[in-house]
Amino acid sequence: MPIQDQYPDDYAHCYGCGRLNAHGLHVQTEWNGSEGVARFRPRPEHVAIPGFVYGGLLASLIDCHAIGTAAAASMPAAGLRPGVDPSPRFVTAGLDVRFLKPTPHGPELVLRATAVELTARKVIVEVSVFVGDVETVHARVVAAPLPASMIR
Amino acid sequence: MPIQDQYPDDYAHCYGCGRLNAHGLHVQTEWNGSEGVARFRPRPEHVAIPGFVYGGLLASLIDCHAIGTAAAASMPAAGLRPGVDPSPRFVTAGLDVRFLKPTPHGPELVLRATAVELTARKVIVEVSVFVGDVETVHARVVAAPLPASMIR
Repeated sequence: MPIQDQYPDDYAHCYGCGRLNAHGLHVQTEWNGSEGVARFRPRPEHVAIPGFVYGGLLASLIDCHAIGTAAAASMPAAGLRPGVDPSPRFVTAGLDVRFLKPTPHGPELVLRATAVELTARKVIVEVSVFVGDVETVHARVVAAPLPASMIR
Repeated sequence: MPIQDQYPDDYAHCYGCGRLNAHGLHVQTEWNGSEGVARFRPRPEHVAIPGFVYGGLLASLIDCHAIGTAAAASMPAAGLRPGVDPSPRFVTAGLDVRFLKPTPHGPELVLRATAVELTARKVIVEVSVFVGDVETVHARVVAAPLPASMIR
């Protein structure tokens, strides 16, 4: 099951990935044991210039997919099974996105993410967005455990 | 008039700021001569966790506001009047966002942006998001002139 579908109800309203957000994007991260993979087809309105995907949408997909990947990567050390047990909720501390080339609007996008650093204080995740076998965007995301001020 | 409302019709469909995108966010940058200012009230669905603004939305607002600010800052040297003459269309090459603290959902957000480097090849823009007088997000955006592959 996608990592985001295992967020507890109180943390499942995210516009980007919450299963309880009726208007949201519903980003879903599948964990294959070492990498998070998400697939997304932008809506017709998600353009920057007609024919090209809006950068803010790409940043949004990257954000939620990186956070889901951080959750999955952190679970085994705690004895938890990604996609089976409830997912821990991380938040984004930093989001550094490089738009390598224009992303064509129309095809399905595939996002691949790997946790490259994993400590109790943060998880650093590298994310690539692919159209076919062409990487159009690369990002580095710093994920942090939910701060006390946001715990419900 | 906001910078984005002076984009030519072919470049006015952006999900973040295009006046011709019926479903978009309609980010509007006002140029005061040295700084771009945008104001935005997130929709109810734009949450990360209930009570806090979704980071992907913040990245989107920053993106379009920085691009509008880059356009405005570049115009006087070309003899153009920001907000009066047609705005040149930049694209985002890099978007580096630091989430300094959670952004509460509800109040109007104020984004302030300044071009800190301005050359023919790129404009670097620093953006702060404020809730009242508290800066919750800071970003550095690299804007580039529209590449030939995206010119319509």
